[in-house]
Amino acid sequence: MAEIPDSHPRKASLISRQRMVEASRRGLLAESAMIAHGRGEAFDYLLGERTTHSAALAIREAAGRLLKADNPVISMNGNSTVLAGEEAIKIAAILGCPIEVNIYYRTEERMSGLIGEFEALKERLANEEENMKPLISEVKILGAEADGRISGLEGPRSLCSAQGIERADVVLVPLEDGDRCEALTSLGKQVIAIDLNPLSRTSRMATVTIVDEVSRALGRLVSELSEKPITTDWDNALHLREALEIMSVSSLRIS
Amino acid sequence: MAEIPDSHPRKASLISRQRMVEASRRGLLAESAMIAHGRGEAFDYLLGERTTHSAALAIREAAGRLLKADNPVISMNGNSTVLAGEEAIKIAAILGCPIEVNIYYRTEERMSGLIGEFEALKERLANEEENMKPLISEVKILGAEADGRISGLEGPRSLCSAQGIERADVVLVPLEDGDRCEALTSLGKQVIAIDLNPLSRTSRMATVTIVDEVSRALGRLVSELSEKPITTDWDNALHLREALEIMSVSSLRIS
Repeated sequence: MAEIPDSHPRKASLISRQRMVEASRRGLLAESAMIAHGRGEAFDYLLGERTTHSAALAIREAAGRLLKADNPVISMNGNSTVLAGEEAIKIAAILGCPIEVNIYYRTEERMSGLIGEFEALKERLANEEENMKPLISEVKILGAEADGRISGLEGPRSLCSAQGIERADVVLVPLEDGDRCEALTSLGKQVIAIDLNPLSRTSRMATVTIVDEVSRALGRLVSELSEKPITTDWDNALHLREALEIMSVSSLRIS
Repeated sequence: MAEIPDSHPRKASLISRQRMVEASRRGLLAESAMIAHGRGEAFDYLLGERTTHSAALAIREAAGRLLKADNPVISMNGNSTVLAGEEAIKIAAILGCPIEVNIYYRTEERMSGLIGEFEALKERLANEEENMKPLISEVKILGAEADGRISGLEGPRSLCSAQGIERADVVLVPLEDGDRCEALTSLGKQVIAIDLNPLSRTSRMATVTIVDEVSRALGRLVSELSEKPITTDWDNALHLREALEIMSVSSLRIS
């Protein structure tokens, strides 16, 4: 990795980019993953590359709903694993819930690569966080078995894990595709999406949308969970409009 | 290439994406090129994936300034070649000016790949457009020689062609980096940039910024040139603000 000076104002964004390039070389990502990452970069740039107040409220709401869930699950794809795999493991450890690797362009090679990535991260994190070691070691990484189905979808995208997404009542899912988000909510599941595009179908279909960069959002969710927040009557459209307003205020940055 | 139905509302965007994926497989693009493309997709999405009135005015202004120039040049990188190489050749044929392949991460392999791409496009276009054949065949593709320098820059990015960018008074440059755009304007050259991000340093440093997708912008420029428009006192900041305002009106799309 090239060194990026600490003083660089966009250091976090550049580190994420390097992680993506490296993961792509290692075959962990679909061919269009880098394009999706770039789209996210643009929206994040307009957000000011920070967690907005509105997004912070969404993260708190997500924490409350995940804590209240009977069977929460964290669904992770290639990009979210590369960018925020560690944070996902910490959340799963706190909630005692599984992580399901679930990717849009499913290949055996990428599935086993990403599951291996999580197992390696678990081992490293268990050693780093002594007091959470037993909880981290117990986090199940699902996805390989593909013994469940998401009704309403066809083809490989309908595949999921019976012990994961299929039985879940609350699904935390960074960077989801719109069709799947819609199918999951049609099944009566709560979907907590993390998506930097407030106009995407996922953002509009989800129960709670966190308009934030995935590693910032999941990092903050880790600390919110310990606050044990209560849930509210969540007006998702209102929060999406707030995100768009913030993006449009970026225009003030031009003199 | 997978078939995309004509009815798909985002067909043009999806075709561009496929072109990028294929060019990447063929080694024509830098590793971060797909990320840059994704950023562009996001801004274009906010623009409504169309040439705005404000961008159309910028394209007309660009046409006027290119026609008036003594030594215009079109500087093309990997992404712009893949997305709008044909349109660049047509513009160069009309203006009787060279195209210079000039890339940020310069490698011999990519330089010769992109120059070869242009030579192949020239041959195909010359056969397709019978009446423009002599003009198209005469378009020089510069870049390999690297016998010029851009003062104010260091390292490989300072390299250019003596007969291209170095001697040019007006540089048409899609998808430029900010430092180079600044260096070119400091040398007294007019820079006509095509950039979907109205907040980028390139957008703010350029003489005329066309906030539009590169193939739409260059396609429209081809027809504008035949109108022989006159130049104006161009207020670039005003047009950048207009682009941002249009992007922020996207918020109305949320109900």
